[in-house]
Amino acid sequence: MTPAINADRLWQSIMDMARIGSTPEGGSCRLALSPEDTEARALLLDWCRPLNLRFEQDAIGNMFLRREGNDDAAPAIAFGSHLDTVPTGGRFDGVFGVLAGLEVIHTLAESGVRTRSALELVNWTNEEGSRFRPAMMGSRVHAADLPLEDALAITDDEGISVREALLAAGQCGGLTPSPRGWACWLEAHIEQGPVLEATGADIGIVTGTVHARYFQLVVTGEPSHVGPTTMDRRRDSLAAAAEIILAVERIALGAEPGGRASASWIENYPNARGNVANITRLHCDVRHERAECAAAMDQELRDAIAAIAARRGVLVAIDPYATFGPVAFDPVLGALLRDKAGARQLVTRDLIAAAGHDSVLIAPLCPSAMLFVPSVGGITHNPREYSTRQHVARGAEVMLEAVLALAG
Amino acid sequence: MTPAINADRLWQSIMDMARIGSTPEGGSCRLALSPEDTEARALLLDWCRPLNLRFEQDAIGNMFLRREGNDDAAPAIAFGSHLDTVPTGGRFDGVFGVLAGLEVIHTLAESGVRTRSALELVNWTNEEGSRFRPAMMGSRVHAADLPLEDALAITDDEGISVREALLAAGQCGGLTPSPRGWACWLEAHIEQGPVLEATGADIGIVTGTVHARYFQLVVTGEPSHVGPTTMDRRRDSLAAAAEIILAVERIALGAEPGGRASASWIENYPNARGNVANITRLHCDVRHERAECAAAMDQELRDAIAAIAARRGVLVAIDPYATFGPVAFDPVLGALLRDKAGARQLVTRDLIAAAGHDSVLIAPLCPSAMLFVPSVGGITHNPREYSTRQHVARGAEVMLEAVLALAG
Repeated sequence: MTPAINADRLWQSIMDMARIGSTPEGGSCRLALSPEDTEARALLLDWCRPLNLRFEQDAIGNMFLRREGNDDAAPAIAFGSHLDTVPTGGRFDGVFGVLAGLEVIHTLAESGVRTRSALELVNWTNEEGSRFRPAMMGSRVHAADLPLEDALAITDDEGISVREALLAAGQCGGLTPSPRGWACWLEAHIEQGPVLEATGADIGIVTGTVHARYFQLVVTGEPSHVGPTTMDRRRDSLAAAAEIILAVERIALGAEPGGRASASWIENYPNARGNVANITRLHCDVRHERAECAAAMDQELRDAIAAIAARRGVLVAIDPYATFGPVAFDPVLGALLRDKAGARQLVTRDLIAAAGHDSVLIAPLCPSAMLFVPSVGGITHNPREYSTRQHVARGAEVMLEAVLALAG
Repeated sequence: MTPAINADRLWQSIMDMARIGSTPEGGSCRLALSPEDTEARALLLDWCRPLNLRFEQDAIGNMFLRREGNDDAAPAIAFGSHLDTVPTGGRFDGVFGVLAGLEVIHTLAESGVRTRSALELVNWTNEEGSRFRPAMMGSRVHAADLPLEDALAITDDEGISVREALLAAGQCGGLTPSPRGWACWLEAHIEQGPVLEATGADIGIVTGTVHARYFQLVVTGEPSHVGPTTMDRRRDSLAAAAEIILAVERIALGAEPGGRASASWIENYPNARGNVANITRLHCDVRHERAECAAAMDQELRDAIAAIAARRGVLVAIDPYATFGPVAFDPVLGALLRDKAGARQLVTRDLIAAAGHDSVLIAPLCPSAMLFVPSVGGITHNPREYSTRQHVARGAEVMLEAVLALAG
């Protein structure tokens, strides 16, 4: 009989982790490689200590916690997620996947179950990309999607590089980032959307992800005075950026239900109250379940920008600096998750993930799969992000069953 | 015969002052009470030293440089402007008025002319309002439009207060800010608009200013994820702010030629690439030659904001934190400037100032007037801001004539 996970311990670990970087609104803020992220990593190591895991860390700060199996020749079964959050983060995004993985190992240790294959619990560095772009940075470097040296040179909005942040946080490990020959990869995560709750499903089987394209834009106009400068002589970069923001939104509305687009980050210069702005930077993204639709949204955005730039006499430089997906996760692993959930009388539903996840980067390296648990109200990246004790316990149970089936 | 100003010396002083905080594009950046502003103030004092002026400074940092007259009982004739600039400042805005005033005193000293009334050259603190809002802060405090203690507590975007900045810059003078019993006030300034150049005028006689209203807005939405959050469930504060920015622009277009409106400053939170923004702050202003039209623009803006907020489910807090004008300058002083320009065969044109100036605050205290010199291309708050050597020399000549006529 399969040992049972300890739902109380899992829940308590999520609540304890949430206290690191806790915000007045009830969420958590642990930007990648911040003191809070570093403290969260230390707490994870503390929890792992009694479990006799071997800790390894690579040069981008990814953490690997290995439980040896009976067969040294068998490739490891790997699972995990990330502990960093967005500035308005909740308590579950990423954290659930890491701590569900820890609970799986904890349960096996407690029950004295030793698997044939080794198990590896992973905490990826900077999944969110809030402080350092691009998102999924640690898994990108691991998968050679982003060269280590390029990643280390990336700076945050304060000019601090990833290299400096890793050193300051003491998170610069000795391993060269590279694939570790895993048999397969599993990631448990909250849905971050409303579908599971709305359809009464307990477990989402993530069959794949959308295709997303990220853009950094620089709008350049001409400085002038807010008073005497007549409207026809202005080349207002902020007004042009405002039009672009609304164009992004319009493109998204035209691409639903499979598509989304967002403009979420802005920096304005001189950002002075007496001055028509002349340089405005924007970040936006477009994403769609179908790659060709995302490409069409990309083209729509470029066309809209060209029209706005021409009409307003501003320049817009477009840097399409990163993409992810589309990814189709391994159908055999998906079927295993579906079966294990079904055997427990849990209702499953197949889903496409609209957000990026580290699994997107791992999928080309080894068979990979994700499971989702419901997000109450579909609310996420928000202090009110919530999944119930039962939601997360069921997710961890299915993970345990799947890991046992895979690891033998 | 009137002594003649030294056009070369005036021009050279403007160029020398522009080197303080000079920018690669050829402009100047001297934010109020920054090290550059402080250095500019020190240079002005250096230049005044041989002229035996009495220097006084008040607690908001306004500088008064007094040349005594023959009649101690006669109230002083005051003139000047400001040395601070916007971040993308040019070489002439404000600087011209201070250095034209200095050139007037220099010319009188050199010619051995002693006037009956004393003369006071003034450099007002923080006219631009780029670092600390509101604009015209020094003259506002002088005129009791803004209480000193309130002004001292105002902070810049880094949280540094005016009080701290004054102390750090060594610009906290001993005088309590208050009106100084001047006989009248004159300010020479660049036009910052295209009218004088376009109409072939040499000197603008500023008959008054527009009425302007400044607003600080806070848009509050709801944080969410840029990926899974469907468009209908977003309460995106940045998209709402973008609509407000375009509403401001639309209101301005409907109010021309007498009106303008601008949104020039923005701050976005969490300003993270994975997050739909939930707090966006905006600064905007509306202004019109006719006060009732500015009031109508104000109402239009509020109506537009209410509609945007209701449709998008966001909250918008409106802080109408300051206004200026409308002001009608003294017609007798205006006629004097017109006559003196005409006597030199200069073409004059009457104008309404669309920007705020310290003179707006001084006008209620004593008869006040402004003269403008042409701005090439109407370009201002821009490194390319330019007035020719002849433009500024003619402006200073008319100032000298007017000062002599007034000071006896």
